[in-house]
Order: sequence, then C-alpha cells, then structure tokens
Amino acid sequence: MDMEQQNEERKNENTVYIGKKPTMNYVLAVVTQFNSGQHEVTIKARGNAISRAVDVKEIVQNRFMPDVKEKSIRTSSEELTNEDGTRSKVSAIQITLTR
Amino acid sequence: MDMEQQNEERKNENTVYIGKKPTMNYVLAVVTQFNSGQHEVTIKARGNAISRAVDVKEIVQNRFMPDVKEKSIRTSSEELTNEDGTRSKVSAIQITLTR
Repeated sequence: MDMEQQNEERKNENTVYIGKKPTMNYVLAVVTQFNSGQHEVTIKARGNAISRAVDVKEIVQNRFMPDVKEKSIRTSSEELTNEDGTRSKVSAIQITLTR
Repeated sequence: MDMEQQNEERKNENTVYIGKKPTMNYVLAVVTQFNSGQHEVTIKARGNAISRAVDVKEIVQNRFMPDVKEKSIRTSSEELTNEDGTRSKVSAIQITLTR
C-alpha cells in the first residue's frame, strides 16, 4: 500500500464499500465503525452490489443498532473503462447512516 | 385476473414493479407513465432487483427525461413466507420520481 492509498484509507475511514463478501461481513464493518466512535458511516456500492448495500442498511438498523438513523440515500451513474477499452455506465448508491 | 387484482392494478397505475425482465422494459414503462400524464411515478423492487431499480431511475433521468426529479428513496424490510413455510426477510426499495 503506497502513501496515497494510505491517505485515502484514512480519509474514508467511515466508509464501507460493499463487494462480494457475505452480507454479514459488511454489517459487522458498519457496526464496528459506530462502536469505535464514528457518528456517521457511509455505505457505498455499485452495480449488483447495490442490493447488498440496502440489505446491510436494513440489518444494521433493524437487528443491531435501532438508534441509527438514515441521513441520506443518493444514487448516481459512474462510467467505467472495461478491460477491452470500451466504456460502460454503472449505477451507484451511497447510503449515509448517523447516530 | 379477478376484480380485486384489477382494482389493485388501477390503484397502482403509477407504480412500476421491477422484476427479471430487461432493464429497458422498465425504463420504457416509467417513461410511458410520465408521457401519459402522470406527475409522479414510483419504482418498487425487492431483493436482487433493487440494483435494477436504481439502473432504471438513472437511465430515465440521464438518458430520457432530464426534467424528472427524485422525490424520495425509501428502503424497508419485508417478511416473505417461503414455499416450505419458513419465513425470510427481504430488503425493498421504493423510488418516487416526479416532474
């Protein structure tokens, strides 16, 4: 990990990026952020992972931290460059939780 | 289709339920609702279809109807009864667009 990546990590400490791991991994990540003192945690996902991001939000709020409120849900479109050089658009979601 | 279902259809005329068809089918459905005079259209999806619901919103706004604004995005959890009688929770999203 180079310096730039390290800075990026620190800056986005309270952001959880949703990938292909089991949903509960990300739930645990969000809960851990709040328990370590963060007042705001942002869940980000693109493409098919968007459904999992909503699952994470719902499980955190309904099962683990009922005092956590939804601050905002935003959607956007991002442009990706594929391996063959072509470009395609992918939807993204950004869910910010607060307590 | 029985009477109750017909009433349900009429009541939800401005709702587009996202299923497993190609994304553009649902984009067309939303655009058609607006063009037939609706001022508000709600996109609903559950589970894996949530990602497609966000795609539909983004494509409608960015490619077809730039004057359409997001009114609200809400998420929820619904409980389903499986074929074997067990129950499972599924996340849902409800995106309301307006113009």
